[in-house]
Amino acid sequence: MASMMFTDCSSISSTLLHVNGRRGAILFRHCVGQLRLQSSASARGCSISIRCSSSPSSATSVDGKAVAKTIRDEITLDVSRMKESIGVVPGLAVILVGDRKDSATYVRNKKKACESVGIKSLEVRLAEDCSEEQVLKSISCFNDDPSIHGILVQLPLPSHMDEQNILNAVSIEKDVDGFHPLNIGRLAMRGREPLFVPCTPKGCIELLHRYNVEIKGKRAVVIGRSNIVGMPAALLLQEDATVSIIHSRTKNPEEITREADIIIAAVGKPNMVRGSWIKPGAVIIDVGINPVDDPNAPRGYRLVGDVCYEEACQIASAITPVPGGVGPMTIAMLLSNTLISAKRIHNFE
Amino acid sequence: MASMMFTDCSSISSTLLHVNGRRGAILFRHCVGQLRLQSSASARGCSISIRCSSSPSSATSVDGKAVAKTIRDEITLDVSRMKESIGVVPGLAVILVGDRKDSATYVRNKKKACESVGIKSLEVRLAEDCSEEQVLKSISCFNDDPSIHGILVQLPLPSHMDEQNILNAVSIEKDVDGFHPLNIGRLAMRGREPLFVPCTPKGCIELLHRYNVEIKGKRAVVIGRSNIVGMPAALLLQEDATVSIIHSRTKNPEEITREADIIIAAVGKPNMVRGSWIKPGAVIIDVGINPVDDPNAPRGYRLVGDVCYEEACQIASAITPVPGGVGPMTIAMLLSNTLISAKRIHNFE
Repeated sequence: MASMMFTDCSSISSTLLHVNGRRGAILFRHCVGQLRLQSSASARGCSISIRCSSSPSSATSVDGKAVAKTIRDEITLDVSRMKESIGVVPGLAVILVGDRKDSATYVRNKKKACESVGIKSLEVRLAEDCSEEQVLKSISCFNDDPSIHGILVQLPLPSHMDEQNILNAVSIEKDVDGFHPLNIGRLAMRGREPLFVPCTPKGCIELLHRYNVEIKGKRAVVIGRSNIVGMPAALLLQEDATVSIIHSRTKNPEEITREADIIIAAVGKPNMVRGSWIKPGAVIIDVGINPVDDPNAPRGYRLVGDVCYEEACQIASAITPVPGGVGPMTIAMLLSNTLISAKRIHNFE
Repeated sequence: MASMMFTDCSSISSTLLHVNGRRGAILFRHCVGQLRLQSSASARGCSISIRCSSSPSSATSVDGKAVAKTIRDEITLDVSRMKESIGVVPGLAVILVGDRKDSATYVRNKKKACESVGIKSLEVRLAEDCSEEQVLKSISCFNDDPSIHGILVQLPLPSHMDEQNILNAVSIEKDVDGFHPLNIGRLAMRGREPLFVPCTPKGCIELLHRYNVEIKGKRAVVIGRSNIVGMPAALLLQEDATVSIIHSRTKNPEEITREADIIIAAVGKPNMVRGSWIKPGAVIIDVGINPVDDPNAPRGYRLVGDVCYEEACQIASAITPVPGGVGPMTIAMLLSNTLISAKRIHNFE
């Protein structure tokens, strides 16, 4: 009898199992906790009994990848329409400074995404040790370039540079990342509209909308208060939900999070949010993308969120997977912001 | 035997009571709920027994009037020092449009406050039906006037005017009200400093500091999310406290407020926050200034806060009175911002 025990299920999906020389195909649902698989060979064939230590997932998987695809299709149509009507193609300029592999990957993904929808993209690569002035010069050129409607500076910048100074230099009309304080101020103020909503929080809210998650009157907890995600996410939710913001100085994050109907987790700590933090039926948007060591994984690591998926998916009503949840939405929102910018600049509906 | 019953104590302070022709002087502490005062005349004189229906106030009164006075004294010294050192006097320009009596009162109080500390103030009065262009012209003149370091447009503006447009026209370096979205954006973003913090929320935090109220790690509830108070107050508290923002769409404001160590109430609804909303020992900053009808009051009305003082002061550890709490602090913070502006412009420490 062959017996295999899995203590973590993220690597289990549909798989062919070779058991005692006979082939068995079993589809596992995500999030089964522990699974003991026993098989006994017999004259009639291979019988496999599955004893699950925990109940199967009850949460809907909020499929960011699929939603992002739908959004990209919508954008593709609009980009074509704009090109045919007024001969304008939206253009995105990306400035990449330094050699970080993750930054290079993110930029590459953004370029591919632009190509997939018909948005023109331009990339400027600068060396790690280039001067701040060179970065500012590139930004200035793109500010003045009428074929460019969005400018993105890939973060983080090398430590010798003044990030504030550089981000402030991007023309507010082309600030597709939405990081300019003027945009953030307009986001914060009721009755005002920002020119651009920061991509990741915009993606989080878009997922809630597309899955018909009610926000009005709900308790929302945002875990994390970064300028890029937590703070703008809280501002976006504040119009309709009752928002609590949790951070490193919060004494009882578990207790407060347990009150939430909607949780947005954006702290960058793998598996920090446990099942005990979650109210039954809550909706979870997990922004975390944390590499954890995994000798079994092809690259020696796998990606997990800020939320312990295995526990959460048995309690929440819906949860984003990592990867495949928020990540693809961030890129889709970048494309969306670039298109919005082009439309606004050219007064195109 | 003369008997008097008081059901509301806001008009009771120290008072001489004429009882059966004899004079008695009794000092009442605030917040006594119901007080039955009985006296019996006797051969020996007037004996007065006081039976209180509720226990006396346990809360410290957060005396905004006194703190504001201290701050004004500090400012007076600094203004003198600046005048003697570099011959510069801070200047505040106030633009008042229309005939509202309350606006006229606020502007008058601000001018008097400026005079009391040695800040020069200039007032421009425009008619209710003046054009937006005239307002913008005044702002533009003050923007260019080197003797003016702060510009304040008294709100609300007449309804035919675009408030956003007008507030945006104030030079960011002279935006002493802190309403410009660029200031708000810098307030919201970690690692950034606004040029000016909006006066009322700044006053709320200043009171907490001056009364040594610990903020770090505490639960703070902000009731209200206006651009002028609630939203910036929440942003200010967010660095150290765990903030929840309550508003008109919140389903269970009482329950959430009861979790708070610090409450900032800024909704404009008289006596909305009841004793049952308050955790024993909480600190309450009441921003509300609500006129309620009172035939016994000299002007036919009296001012009450958003918090039912009579109930709250028996549960909270500290609470601002209304009036005499936040109001004087708002003005003190305006003076402070004007001085900060002059120092910054002239590079004076």
